[in-house]
Amino acid sequence: MKKVVAGVDIGGTNTRFGLVDEKGKVLSENSFNTTDYPKIEDFVGALVVTIKKLMSGKKDYKLIGIGIGAPDANYHRGTIEHAPNLAWKGIVPLADLIKKKINIPVVVTNDANAAAMGEMIFGGAKKMKDFIVLTLGTGLGSGIVINGEMVYGHTGFAGELGHMIVVPGGRECGCGRKGCLETYASATGLVRTVQYLLSEMRDESPLRDIPPSKLTSKKIAEAAAKKDPIAVRAMNETAEILGFGIINSIVFSSPEAIFLFGGLAQAGEMLFAPVRKYLEKNNYVLMKGTVKILPSGISESKGAVMGSAALIWNELKGK
Amino acid sequence: MKKVVAGVDIGGTNTRFGLVDEKGKVLSENSFNTTDYPKIEDFVGALVVTIKKLMSGKKDYKLIGIGIGAPDANYHRGTIEHAPNLAWKGIVPLADLIKKKINIPVVVTNDANAAAMGEMIFGGAKKMKDFIVLTLGTGLGSGIVINGEMVYGHTGFAGELGHMIVVPGGRECGCGRKGCLETYASATGLVRTVQYLLSEMRDESPLRDIPPSKLTSKKIAEAAAKKDPIAVRAMNETAEILGFGIINSIVFSSPEAIFLFGGLAQAGEMLFAPVRKYLEKNNYVLMKGTVKILPSGISESKGAVMGSAALIWNELKGK
Repeated sequence: MKKVVAGVDIGGTNTRFGLVDEKGKVLSENSFNTTDYPKIEDFVGALVVTIKKLMSGKKDYKLIGIGIGAPDANYHRGTIEHAPNLAWKGIVPLADLIKKKINIPVVVTNDANAAAMGEMIFGGAKKMKDFIVLTLGTGLGSGIVINGEMVYGHTGFAGELGHMIVVPGGRECGCGRKGCLETYASATGLVRTVQYLLSEMRDESPLRDIPPSKLTSKKIAEAAAKKDPIAVRAMNETAEILGFGIINSIVFSSPEAIFLFGGLAQAGEMLFAPVRKYLEKNNYVLMKGTVKILPSGISESKGAVMGSAALIWNELKGK
Repeated sequence: MKKVVAGVDIGGTNTRFGLVDEKGKVLSENSFNTTDYPKIEDFVGALVVTIKKLMSGKKDYKLIGIGIGAPDANYHRGTIEHAPNLAWKGIVPLADLIKKKINIPVVVTNDANAAAMGEMIFGGAKKMKDFIVLTLGTGLGSGIVINGEMVYGHTGFAGELGHMIVVPGGRECGCGRKGCLETYASATGLVRTVQYLLSEMRDESPLRDIPPSKLTSKKIAEAAAKKDPIAVRAMNETAEILGFGIINSIVFSSPEAIFLFGGLAQAGEMLFAPVRKYLEKNNYVLMKGTVKILPSGISESKGAVMGSAALIWNELKGK
């Protein structure tokens, strides 16, 4: 019997599934629209059916657990709590609801923690005990590993570096405060920076022909690659403020590496080079030269499902 | 035989010693001037002699280890490295030098980590797994405990929250950068804030009669207790910037409590009340109401020696 784990990535739009083996190989995949299930009971029903479908006919596979990455998820309680981008309001006891239908281990955590777990079990952090993964998408998520363990904290919500305030009184954040790191250092933050620079700078730019609602970090990265001055400056300013958030994180836990994952990280060296340069200049003296800034060792497309499955594989380590 | 640990607190001026039992009781104490030993070999000789003196005649005591708190100390390597306030330059292999003279376990870490260990083993954090101790003295030191373990990080220098930059381009810091938390939120930071406010405000104040070099956080706290407007405002501004550093630390590790220790913490509710008020208003939504701001449960005078001894008692836990 080959042991497999179901990795589940719950997003605001899609929920993706994969059966993942001990080496991180995704053996089969599936997905459905999260928005088709406004009632959580129906969602859980569909989730269990989808996993059973993936397992059907695989007589030599044994399903040993379900790992789930979801927004606003709480590891300690196995819940999703007050997630603004999901239809289910209040506190959703996701792990318990699933276990009532299928009695195997279920682990739930937020998507960035799942990404960090994927990095540790299958990716670039296999031999590391202290590292941080930053997911640079719509927001900035973070998964923090210290002494080889994921940091969940007293509440189960630890690792919210996107809500470190970096510009007091700065940009409005979805959390109701101002100046949080994710309002600058994320795919959305880059778009906001371009919008600001379009007002500040007089340079001609193809970015002026795109409606603000259609502007994406990908289009900006493409413009930057062609040396568009507004895109280049936006990329550099984003890298600097990300670097600022990183030096303030390094004094906390002194990690061996920071992995950058997600849409904005796809910009590659246009982002990584100025982040590294900022760190060389501005890092705290005892930490200089001690931290690697690395791209994720997990593929962007399979990362979320692999990371979610890694949650279960991690709990079985050494057992 | 009663097992005892020698707790040693190395400061720029004095080195203090205590024999500490498993309950945290300080059985006997001693101290000498650190500055009398500009050569590290002589210092180590004096340290070992002092511990042997404390043990002499105590036939029913068994010395099972030496725990040391020191500035710029590295737990992983047992070293003191490039400490600006000590005479010994470069990297000092303190643990190894001591073990050559007395073959028992020696653990070295920085003074704030030792304070946190004291809090966990003997103080207010006995039942906590996730907490932070901030020592508010000449600088701001921090000891961070996550999942019941001290955070040393990849370098061994983790927990330098005093060097989180809170005001980009702000006050000059001893680390060579600008705007670090400790330049505002420490005993020295409070003095600097009063100096600034003396220039800004026109109120009469007894603080105007004290030469700047003689101004202390204690004198400012006394003036604030008598409602001196400059001292009160300085205390509030210090509390707010400390609160700002605290909310940015909470999103990282989601601690159950933050303990304030050291000279500035002696100001009591004049400091604690505005810190708590700032947190209520400005903390990240998922963390609101989840973090206690507490005074240390360890006496100010014996804290350093007890914390250093706790380093050894902690390593013996569960053995």
